[in-house]
Amino acid sequence: MQTNPLKVTSKTKFTRTPKRGSFDREKAYQILDSTPMCHVSYLIDGEPYITPTLQWRTGNDLYWHGSSASRFLKAIEGKPVAINVMLLDGLVLARSAFHHSANYRSVTLFGDARKLEPGEKRRHLEEFVEDILPGRWNVLRPMSNQEVRATTIFTIPIEEASVKVRDGMPIDDDEDYELPIWAGVIPISQIVGEPISDTKNIDGLKTPEHVFDFSIG
Amino acid sequence: MQTNPLKVTSKTKFTRTPKRGSFDREKAYQILDSTPMCHVSYLIDGEPYITPTLQWRTGNDLYWHGSSASRFLKAIEGKPVAINVMLLDGLVLARSAFHHSANYRSVTLFGDARKLEPGEKRRHLEEFVEDILPGRWNVLRPMSNQEVRATTIFTIPIEEASVKVRDGMPIDDDEDYELPIWAGVIPISQIVGEPISDTKNIDGLKTPEHVFDFSIG
Repeated sequence: MQTNPLKVTSKTKFTRTPKRGSFDREKAYQILDSTPMCHVSYLIDGEPYITPTLQWRTGNDLYWHGSSASRFLKAIEGKPVAINVMLLDGLVLARSAFHHSANYRSVTLFGDARKLEPGEKRRHLEEFVEDILPGRWNVLRPMSNQEVRATTIFTIPIEEASVKVRDGMPIDDDEDYELPIWAGVIPISQIVGEPISDTKNIDGLKTPEHVFDFSIG
Repeated sequence: MQTNPLKVTSKTKFTRTPKRGSFDREKAYQILDSTPMCHVSYLIDGEPYITPTLQWRTGNDLYWHGSSASRFLKAIEGKPVAINVMLLDGLVLARSAFHHSANYRSVTLFGDARKLEPGEKRRHLEEFVEDILPGRWNVLRPMSNQEVRATTIFTIPIEEASVKVRDGMPIDDDEDYELPIWAGVIPISQIVGEPISDTKNIDGLKTPEHVFDFSIG
């Protein structure tokens, strides 16, 4: 279990609703491990850009990857980025419009994007595949050196980061609880469907166990 | 039906995989209307920040809102933002690690965030509630002037924007199709659960129809 908290800085400190915010490292890891999606905010020529991409965690570091030719990945080397991972858990319906809200779990991270050295990449690509689909790496056609070269991986430490979570029922104004207005939560969740086999798979191939092990949320 | 396409600029043009990208306005609207979530990328003191929030569309404009006290909303008035709305539809499992991918629908928008004038806000908050939960606004305790004042709304035109969609099966190297490796798609989708009534609702209150009409994805 991790016990050292995340780092409070001018970027991560909460200015409002601190009851929903925390610097709990274990909670951050749980959220990061619950979904492979993230959004990266970065600059090109001083203007804000945003790119959704897949992320994975190894220990205290967050990783993402892409084509070495990507404008996004060319722009961020050594530069500050902000990354958010969030799961939408529901809509919160209050008795007044003002107190409507959403339930969610969210981690926001800041850091300077470090590009992995060529010699580090293959090991981390294996960790990426194994993080999302344990057991898959070894059944795949091995990765060529050319494929490793064509892939860029970035990382930031999970350090300057914060967690925000909202759950439960609406918080209405005291006097509104007497009103005949339905309040409650509409739950939202992500589900994994039945795997769909490529019609180009060779005959007689069974769907391997690791394909059924994937979960999200 | 909208026919005028979205605007190609140095920010929105595709540098790679243009077959997945488009400037199709109707497709952008379908994606924006499929989920209330977005991520906003913006600057504070020249550094990138990111905030997930709810979005809604009215005509050719995208809107988001929050507390007038929020650091995020104070930072962006009249400033450039980049916004992404994305739905993760599945993991794409290829015969090589390199050709693994994700299926998704994504819209990225750029613009200078315009803060709505006080006199515009109430109408747009009604549109927000009605966009997500048609029929709810009129059953709620009416919004006070103080609540409208405490809410800030921003908008950008849906103009400098692009769409990226990936669907279907993996695209493997020709020679890899003969390998005895299972390939296919693990579908991912968002689902809406049974509404949960607040235990503090007054006795005998029935869940109204509009609560069951919400859908996502």
